[in-house]
Amino acid sequence: MNEDITVYLNKKKEMIDTQLPLFVKKLSAPDALKEAMIYSLEAGGKRLRPILLLAVIEALGQDPAKGLNTAVALEMIHTYSLIHDDLPAMDNDDLRRGKPTNHKVFGEAGAILAGDALLTLAFEIAANDSEDIDSITKLKLVTKLAAAAGPEGMVGGQHDDFMAEGLALELVDLESIHLRKTGKLLTYAVEAGALIGGANKAVTQRLLSFARHMGIAFQIKDDILDIEGNEQDLGKPVGSDVANQKNTYPKLLTMDGAKEKLNDHFQQAVHELNVTGLQCERLKQIAEYILKRTS
Amino acid sequence: MNEDITVYLNKKKEMIDTQLPLFVKKLSAPDALKEAMIYSLEAGGKRLRPILLLAVIEALGQDPAKGLNTAVALEMIHTYSLIHDDLPAMDNDDLRRGKPTNHKVFGEAGAILAGDALLTLAFEIAANDSEDIDSITKLKLVTKLAAAAGPEGMVGGQHDDFMAEGLALELVDLESIHLRKTGKLLTYAVEAGALIGGANKAVTQRLLSFARHMGIAFQIKDDILDIEGNEQDLGKPVGSDVANQKNTYPKLLTMDGAKEKLNDHFQQAVHELNVTGLQCERLKQIAEYILKRTS
Repeated sequence: MNEDITVYLNKKKEMIDTQLPLFVKKLSAPDALKEAMIYSLEAGGKRLRPILLLAVIEALGQDPAKGLNTAVALEMIHTYSLIHDDLPAMDNDDLRRGKPTNHKVFGEAGAILAGDALLTLAFEIAANDSEDIDSITKLKLVTKLAAAAGPEGMVGGQHDDFMAEGLALELVDLESIHLRKTGKLLTYAVEAGALIGGANKAVTQRLLSFARHMGIAFQIKDDILDIEGNEQDLGKPVGSDVANQKNTYPKLLTMDGAKEKLNDHFQQAVHELNVTGLQCERLKQIAEYILKRTS
Repeated sequence: MNEDITVYLNKKKEMIDTQLPLFVKKLSAPDALKEAMIYSLEAGGKRLRPILLLAVIEALGQDPAKGLNTAVALEMIHTYSLIHDDLPAMDNDDLRRGKPTNHKVFGEAGAILAGDALLTLAFEIAANDSEDIDSITKLKLVTKLAAAAGPEGMVGGQHDDFMAEGLALELVDLESIHLRKTGKLLTYAVEAGALIGGANKAVTQRLLSFARHMGIAFQIKDDILDIEGNEQDLGKPVGSDVANQKNTYPKLLTMDGAKEKLNDHFQQAVHELNVTGLQCERLKQIAEYILKRTS
C-alpha cells in the first residue's frame, strides 16, 4: 500500500471520467441529446459509486477491469437521477457542482430526455456481454441494478423525499428515505463488486452491512455540509435544505447528535470490513474519505 | 383459425391488462408512486406491442407464455414514454385515451417519477430469470430492449420530434423520427418474439422487415386519425398535430398521398409475412387491424 488514497481515488476517478463520455460519443443518436447526456456526465462528481465497486473487486483479489461496464452503468444511473432531481418540478435547482443544471442549459424537455436516455443506456451497458462475466451473473447484476434504482429503491426514496418536504419526519422515516434514495445505489456498488469478485455468502453479508453504514454516514455528512460546508468547495449554496424545509439529521438530532451518529456509523462500517478477513485497506480509506470530505 | 381476430386481440389484451398491474402491486414501494404507475398502466391502450410479441412466438409454433415477462416489460416502457411525452415541458397534453394525463392527477414530480419507475422496473422484469429462456437469450432481450428504447431508438426519436416542432421537415427526416419514436419498439416486439420463438436468421430478417413496414403504417394511420378520426373513439381532441405544428404524413404528402403510402406499406408488410413460410394468419390480421383501426 504505497499509494496515497487521494492518488488512488484520482486514478480511479480519471478512468471513470474517461470511460463515461466514450459510451455516449459512439452512439448513433441526435447530437443535441448526446451533448446533454455528456454535459451532466462530465459535470464532475466524486465517482464514489463506481470507485467503491472497483475497490471491492480489488479487495477480493480480482481484476477491477471486469467491473468497468457495470461501474459505468451505475454512474450513468446516478447521473440521470441528479438531472431529474434538479428539474423545476422537483428540487428546482439552478446549480450543481458549480455549473448550471442540465435543464438550465438544455431546457426542461432536453433534460427529461437526457435523463431517460442515460437510464436506458445504463441497462444496455450493464447487460452487454463483452466482459469476462458469465451470463447468469450478468443477469443478476442487471436485475439488482434495476431493483436498486427503481420504485423499491432510489426512485421510491426520491418520491418519499419529495412528498415529505415541509412535513416533520420521525428519524425512522428519514432513515427509510435515505436508505433508498442514496443508500440503495451505494449498496449496489458493493454488492455488484462482491458478485463480480466472487465473494462467498458470509463475506457478501459483511460487505453489504458495511455499505449500509457507509450509505447512512454519507447522507449525514451531506446534511452537515449543507450547514457547515464551504460554498466554493461544494459548488452550490449552503442552507438549501433549511430553505426547502428538508428533513435532515442535524434538524432531528442537533448538529452534535448528527456528528456523533456519523462517527458511529463510520466505526461500524470499519468493523464490518475488519471481520471479512479481506485486504480492505482501500475500502477503509474510502470510508474515511467520505467521513472527512468537504464537498 | 376459428377465432375472430377481435376475439383473439381481446383475449391477449385481457391477459396483458391483468398482468401489468400485478407486477406493480406486489412491490414494496410508496403507495402513491404505485398508484401513479398503475393509473397509466390501466389507462387502456391497444397493447399492440405485447400482442405482436406473443403472436410472433405463436407463429413460430412456440408457447407464447414464454414471452410474457418480456411483453410486460415492453408495455411498461411504452407507458413510461407516454407519461413523459405528455408532461407540460414536452407535449403538454391534458388528456390521453379520454382520461386526464398522469401529471394532471399526480402532479409533475409524481409523473416524472412514475415514468422513471416504470422504465426501471421494466428492465428488472425483462432480466428476471423466472422464465424458460436461457441466460444468453435473456441478455440479448435486455440489451435489444434498451437499444430500442434508448438514445439510438425511441428517446432519440422523441428528442428529434420535439425539436422539429414548428420546423418544416423533409419526408426522409419525418420517417427517420418515426422509425425511432414508434418504430423501434414495434420492431423490438417482433424481434423479441423471433428470439424467444427461435426463428432462424432468414425468417428473422423477414419478420423485421414486416415490423418496419408495420411501424410506418402505424404512424401514417395515427396522423390520418388526428385529422379524420372521431374524438369519441380516440379519447382525445383531433387536430392537435396541426395546432402543435407537427410534421405529419398528410401535411407532407396530402391526405390522398398519405393513404396511398399507408396501403403500400401494408401490402409490403403482408408480402414479407408470406415469404416467411410460417403460419402468419394472425400477424396478417393484426396488420389489417392496424390499417383499419379507428383509435
